[in-house]
Amino acid sequence: MKVAIDSVDTLGFEKSSDFSLSELACKSIINILKKTKIEKQEVDGLIVSTCSNEQYLGNIISEMVGLNPKISTKLENLCNSGTSAIFLGYSLIASGICNSIIITGIEKQYSPGNQLLWDITRGVYDLPVHWAALFAKAHFRNFNTCDEDLALISEKNHKNANKNPNALFYNKVFRFDDIIKSKKIVDPLKILDCCYPCEGCSSLLLVSEKLAKRSENPIWIKGISQNNQGASFANISFDLRSIASTRIASREAFKQAKLKPSDIDIAELHDAFTILEVLAYEDIGFTEKGQGSKFVKQERLYTNTRGGLLGCGHPVGATGIDQTNEIVLQLQDKAPSIRQRKNCTRGLIHNMAAAGTSSTIIIVEK
Amino acid sequence: MKVAIDSVDTLGFEKSSDFSLSELACKSIINILKKTKIEKQEVDGLIVSTCSNEQYLGNIISEMVGLNPKISTKLENLCNSGTSAIFLGYSLIASGICNSIIITGIEKQYSPGNQLLWDITRGVYDLPVHWAALFAKAHFRNFNTCDEDLALISEKNHKNANKNPNALFYNKVFRFDDIIKSKKIVDPLKILDCCYPCEGCSSLLLVSEKLAKRSENPIWIKGISQNNQGASFANISFDLRSIASTRIASREAFKQAKLKPSDIDIAELHDAFTILEVLAYEDIGFTEKGQGSKFVKQERLYTNTRGGLLGCGHPVGATGIDQTNEIVLQLQDKAPSIRQRKNCTRGLIHNMAAAGTSSTIIIVEK
Repeated sequence: MKVAIDSVDTLGFEKSSDFSLSELACKSIINILKKTKIEKQEVDGLIVSTCSNEQYLGNIISEMVGLNPKISTKLENLCNSGTSAIFLGYSLIASGICNSIIITGIEKQYSPGNQLLWDITRGVYDLPVHWAALFAKAHFRNFNTCDEDLALISEKNHKNANKNPNALFYNKVFRFDDIIKSKKIVDPLKILDCCYPCEGCSSLLLVSEKLAKRSENPIWIKGISQNNQGASFANISFDLRSIASTRIASREAFKQAKLKPSDIDIAELHDAFTILEVLAYEDIGFTEKGQGSKFVKQERLYTNTRGGLLGCGHPVGATGIDQTNEIVLQLQDKAPSIRQRKNCTRGLIHNMAAAGTSSTIIIVEK
Repeated sequence: MKVAIDSVDTLGFEKSSDFSLSELACKSIINILKKTKIEKQEVDGLIVSTCSNEQYLGNIISEMVGLNPKISTKLENLCNSGTSAIFLGYSLIASGICNSIIITGIEKQYSPGNQLLWDITRGVYDLPVHWAALFAKAHFRNFNTCDEDLALISEKNHKNANKNPNALFYNKVFRFDDIIKSKKIVDPLKILDCCYPCEGCSSLLLVSEKLAKRSENPIWIKGISQNNQGASFANISFDLRSIASTRIASREAFKQAKLKPSDIDIAELHDAFTILEVLAYEDIGFTEKGQGSKFVKQERLYTNTRGGLLGCGHPVGATGIDQTNEIVLQLQDKAPSIRQRKNCTRGLIHNMAAAGTSSTIIIVEK
């Protein structure tokens, strides 16, 4: 059975607010219910994506908003949480069990998830920037990628964020020179090669084909795939030139959608670090392996138009949902006019977690 | 598409061990892989059910066991977590996305979840025994149920646990007199009306119709339904004679299975407190409303043959899976001979969370 995205909502990402996790989710879900023609009583599922340990959030949020869903639960899959929630929501509709499911991702800045303490193969180098730096070094060594290539990505995404009022860095301008001269964190990555963990909430409403008849601009999920390679960096680092989970998930999602990378007009790519966007270009197949640093200068494919994780900030449980929301808005021609791209028919969302140990790819079409 | 349970495994429930959450899960999953004819490489999903906040457990456990699943995630839905995980696994297979999914539930005794701190409507009466006592009082008042009726349930389930080597209270005999004279906790409930939070791990393997051809004794899921009424006791306590979420989930599961309560030979009922088993008899429809206390003496339907939560202990994230495992073993004629019941064709699993704010019903058939 076909599955569509009916409506999306994002609250402004910020460092922190006085609102609780469940209050943030309620605000966003109420916005969704205002935007859609689906009635509150028709919503038969709620999946909450977060790295927080607050218990029973699916039911707490259901009660606060006034939903009585068939299924209500909370899930966690680190940075891949939001897209995992969309995947499970997709399966609940595709199987005919549910007709309309709200997916909401919420995070406070203090939520856990910035270190995977389990992975002792990383030794004391256990922050994400450590593995990202290894990927960057390998790309520099193998393909002559350089600091300037990465700075171009940061510049592009920050510029896009200046057109996104929901982005953490909406009002902050980072020029190429600021980026290239920013403080080095782990060679070769500088602080402006890295995203900023923050607070945020993004929600979307998935509907069945039947309910999608009432949607003004349903955006159809044509392909959705996740791949899990493991959890430790040591286990996936046999080839630092590529993220295997992204390669495999992309191949499967394109096969399901019966499409190829050149069919995609716009993509949200997981850029927790600049180097990851370079790898995503290559591993999804938008360009050849090794050509990623050149691809940043191309103009055919729109990338990270909301500002990416670099410009928007990274509220872990919400990120995958907000990436999806941007593609939906662009395909619906509902993005703010200052950043609306023209003639977008097909979009792709790429999200991943923990050194690329898992990746999710979603391909959508209007 | 049809979904079957291929294999089940349970580790002995105990107060605590030196094993970590992920080590417990690995032991149990390895047992599953020994029992099934499905190859490790064919397992394309892993859902971990737990109230623990350890991050990325889906992927960590996948790596430790050597799985490369399409989808891997961790979910939490309080006491209803295990059955929520089975529900999501069911939808992933019914939608055709996956062919074989391992569901594993793990809990350490120190996991959070014994108090729902969010529910301030409970005031200082925020432990589960407080709401359970209100349900008991209401049943006593409306239907002349009495201490002795509840003690009979505790006695039956503890006796069953004495035939289950995995049960926390396998070696501990509680006679009717011990139970009726046990310490009063919150009137009218005594300590032996209450289950004991403990450590435990239970796993099962769900398979598609195609893979089930290789199962020796596939047990088919004929009906599966969850209902969520909210999260706070105040919101669901307008009628203390009944658990609405159980009533609604049962009605829908029986409708999907095209069966009625009298078709069921054996049932696992959520008995975190004795009174909940009485309510389950009535709300599922095994007997009329108000007749639950008499139903305990009937012999047609086998109930809580593994010992229930009262006899087995209650490792929150594992309980719903272990309930399902018992029904599967009984239908497969694979329960230890001392507790194997004869001629069971159809079974039912009832699980719930937090004052009955949510319930799940699964109906299976051999």
